[in-house]
Amino acid sequence: MSYDDQNIFAKILRRELPAAIVYEDERTAAFMDIMPRSPGHCLVIPKAHARNLLDCDEADLAACMAVVKKLSGAAMRAFGADGVTLLQANESAAGQEVFHLHFHIIPRHDGEKLKPPAGEMESPDVLMANADKIRAAME
Amino acid sequence: MSYDDQNIFAKILRRELPAAIVYEDERTAAFMDIMPRSPGHCLVIPKAHARNLLDCDEADLAACMAVVKKLSGAAMRAFGADGVTLLQANESAAGQEVFHLHFHIIPRHDGEKLKPPAGEMESPDVLMANADKIRAAME
Repeated sequence: MSYDDQNIFAKILRRELPAAIVYEDERTAAFMDIMPRSPGHCLVIPKAHARNLLDCDEADLAACMAVVKKLSGAAMRAFGADGVTLLQANESAAGQEVFHLHFHIIPRHDGEKLKPPAGEMESPDVLMANADKIRAAME
Repeated sequence: MSYDDQNIFAKILRRELPAAIVYEDERTAAFMDIMPRSPGHCLVIPKAHARNLLDCDEADLAACMAVVKKLSGAAMRAFGADGVTLLQANESAAGQEVFHLHFHIIPRHDGEKLKPPAGEMESPDVLMANADKIRAAME
């Protein structure tokens, strides 16, 4: 299994495609999922090339998880959520569709089921506003 | 939200309850899920007290993820899987049932849907044999 740098997350990192960016540092970036499974659904990725968990450097994994932890708390506060689901798919058999490692952070509310993946596309305005909410809750 | 050291994973760490242990080091332990969503479904946990991702020390998170990576590859090899789903639930709203941080590693095969959580209990003999298979594939 190899890494193809024409995947859409690589293009987002190179600013060749737009995204509602929530957070960025030397090793990681985070942005809103365009087909959210709940309001506030965002993704954390390493900047380094990694197809998925299986070929990711341990230091990049650690950096991603530190951001996943921070954004999980911020997304809960920003959306008044009761919990968070962390999901990460490796290969098509697991539902991976973009072959650059990404961690899904999905805010959850008591009694509400998770929407199925690859559902409705959210508007860029809503995604930008939601990114702003999470960013504000990080501070 | 607080940590209750009477949860079943804390009891497994103290050897008060049995488990099909796959791996253990200073900071982490891994064992088979007793209600597997696919053959080879195992869990990675930190030894330190952490209710979930939200209160876990970054160094413990990093240690868990290094083990998650190793076990994901080993579980794929051991069960001839095509992929792996990584899942981690924070709080009841996300489906968390045991309140000690745990990462689910679930081997996946092309075209096979994930079984629902909390399904059938697997026999201890099968779980021990599956732990042995994963351990062998780590070497």
